[in-house]
Amino acid sequence: MSFIEIKPDSDFSLHNIPFGIISTSENATLNSFMSLGKPVWSATRLTIQKLLSASEATLRDNQELRQRAFAPASSVKMHIPAEIGDYTDFYASKEHATNVGIMFRGKENALMPNWTHLPVGYHGRASSVVVSGTELHRPKGQRTVVKGEAPQFGNSLRMDCELEMAFLVGTGNKLGQSISIEKAKDHIFGVVLMNDWSARDIQAWEYVPLGPFLGKNFGTTVSAWVVTMDALEPFAVDGPVQTPQPLPYLAEKSASAFDINLEIQLKPAESSKYSVISRSNLKYMYWSFTQQLAHHTVNGCNMRTGDLCGSGTISGPTEDSFGSLLELSWNGTKELQLEDGITRKFLHDNDEMILTGWCEKDGVRVGFGECHGKILPAHQ
Amino acid sequence: MSFIEIKPDSDFSLHNIPFGIISTSENATLNSFMSLGKPVWSATRLTIQKLLSASEATLRDNQELRQRAFAPASSVKMHIPAEIGDYTDFYASKEHATNVGIMFRGKENALMPNWTHLPVGYHGRASSVVVSGTELHRPKGQRTVVKGEAPQFGNSLRMDCELEMAFLVGTGNKLGQSISIEKAKDHIFGVVLMNDWSARDIQAWEYVPLGPFLGKNFGTTVSAWVVTMDALEPFAVDGPVQTPQPLPYLAEKSASAFDINLEIQLKPAESSKYSVISRSNLKYMYWSFTQQLAHHTVNGCNMRTGDLCGSGTISGPTEDSFGSLLELSWNGTKELQLEDGITRKFLHDNDEMILTGWCEKDGVRVGFGECHGKILPAHQ
Ligand SMILES: [Ca+2]
Ligand SMILES: [Ca+2]
Ligand SMILES: [Mg+2]
Ligand SMILES: [Mg+2]
Ligand code: NI
Repeated sequence: MSFIEIKPDSDFSLHNIPFGIISTSENATLNSFMSLGKPVWSATRLTIQKLLSASEATLRDNQELRQRAFAPASSVKMHIPAEIGDYTDFYASKEHATNVGIMFRGKENALMPNWTHLPVGYHGRASSVVVSGTELHRPKGQRTVVKGEAPQFGNSLRMDCELEMAFLVGTGNKLGQSISIEKAKDHIFGVVLMNDWSARDIQAWEYVPLGPFLGKNFGTTVSAWVVTMDALEPFAVDGPVQTPQPLPYLAEKSASAFDINLEIQLKPAESSKYSVISRSNLKYMYWSFTQQLAHHTVNGCNMRTGDLCGSGTISGPTEDSFGSLLELSWNGTKELQLEDGITRKFLHDNDEMILTGWCEKDGVRVGFGECHGKILPAHQ
Repeated sequence: MSFIEIKPDSDFSLHNIPFGIISTSENATLNSFMSLGKPVWSATRLTIQKLLSASEATLRDNQELRQRAFAPASSVKMHIPAEIGDYTDFYASKEHATNVGIMFRGKENALMPNWTHLPVGYHGRASSVVVSGTELHRPKGQRTVVKGEAPQFGNSLRMDCELEMAFLVGTGNKLGQSISIEKAKDHIFGVVLMNDWSARDIQAWEYVPLGPFLGKNFGTTVSAWVVTMDALEPFAVDGPVQTPQPLPYLAEKSASAFDINLEIQLKPAESSKYSVISRSNLKYMYWSFTQQLAHHTVNGCNMRTGDLCGSGTISGPTEDSFGSLLELSWNGTKELQLEDGITRKFLHDNDEMILTGWCEKDGVRVGFGECHGKILPAHQ
């Protein structure tokens, strides 16, 4: 219990104590704090919890200190929480990989032979990772409007989102060294929501054989508050059974998935109402964050404080739990039904999206705030 | 003519005036200088040329100033020239893409349908870009030893190099904006040599469908001196004829390729002699640097000062001009003959490589120094 009022459905409970950058200084980031390591992160969270608890007088009874320590949420601007050196995106939901594989490569080749052996990932673009609330322009580029014909240049006609979570590296490793799966947990500072905006037509044309590029790198949105691994610990659960058994460097010894409810909300431009278009859960993810980090560094690749690693689109097993419009509209073959009879296959100009995530157990609630974005018309 | 002695075969001629970081300060980079823009880069080069010319007394006749201005090359340590925010690697040599395509996907699917329409590129890892002279460990990871069988974990057995050049972005663009092909030249600060080390077995297993990852991100080496676009201007030539004609946003209006001779030298661990194993030229590159930059930003992706863009492996049309061991040994089916009867298909532990590059015309010579690396045994 805290002496400040925290509503029962607040994302930011006394248990949570998320970290973020609220100042008006554009240059502030969490990097120097994150580089101090797990013992400092944990001690800081405990200290803040103590200071906010109802039984602790230090802040509770000191008006002047409270004046300096608190700022009304409505008066501050949130910033990107970290300076991101490198951003990697994984592809760790079996349901998502299977769905996309069926659409792009047919049922036979849906899941590539490597998929069940390692967490497939690729390098993303760090410069265009933006904080929740940033408006992005619809990208232009080459795409084939009629399959098999020459590409045309124009605005993306298949603007999509990807429901993801991402972890921030707190402490890294030297080039040539690896982070073992046992130690991986202590290198992760915390987790954010992430929307990996995707221009499906640009992506489909460009991605062979070297992967996504302009179909993704025009913008990726993350939520502003970083929820620590300490706060998430009570929500750890076993992930999906892994067959074949992962190689030893990827073998988890304890519960490494997290039971985090996720939602995608879409507000079409012509309406003021958000509709929930998907309900998923992080626990569906086949490869865990710790497996991703162990894999990423097994070849000696060096991680740095502030590096961002996305989970990949988190799709559940049912049609109402898919994490992208590509899957929800099944490659544009069916309409999504929104409030007031409005429909969508892909995003229109001025559509807005919100991703949310939260866990709840034994009276403790931890949430992530929101990851909001709006797609403005393409620049002319 | 300069008053300091510059040998006729020096890479660093009075015309060249390359920029690099020689201090012992680990944090110095060229970023702040590069962010000042093309007029400042050009003026700085001209000022240094003037100060070094035989007819200019300022430095020539001032011993004390010379003491402060010069440092013997043997006494300084070279650093990575820029803080690299994002590193992108292109795939812009038609010969290389065709060779690799034949080996990995067969003659029918060698060149993907998109390849002649756009400069295919992918995001690389910025954290592991290192300066010439840095030793790297052989990476470990998953790879299939017998095709079709389950992957095994172990040291890469097919360590390779890629002969590339890369440009450094001097001034970038805002998220949502693009850099037109006409203006692209003025955003590029200069060019370095680059060795995109590649573990072919790890890459072959992991790269479908999202592109190269651990097969590349254990290390990428760049040369220490950045040769400016001003210095390269006299060596501009027309690139290969492009069919089909590129879309308007990729259409060059002037000569945009560069006639730069390139060599790969290999010193096997058991010898003290380097052998030249390939002679190539940057002019073979199908897509120019300016086309790459225009393409990279056409979707609104933001470039920042210090971003690095690799050309992709620069293979020429003949077998002795291929830019990787993969091609030179034709996927390990033939041995490369080195000095003293030594042979190689891929790199052994403690092998060393040097990439060099230079142009020469009308008595003006411009070189890049060297891009050196050594492959140490894998960490145990
Ligand atoms: Ca994604
Ligand atoms: Ca390459
Ligand atoms: Mg994205
Ligand atoms: Mg590399
Ligand atoms: Ni070492």
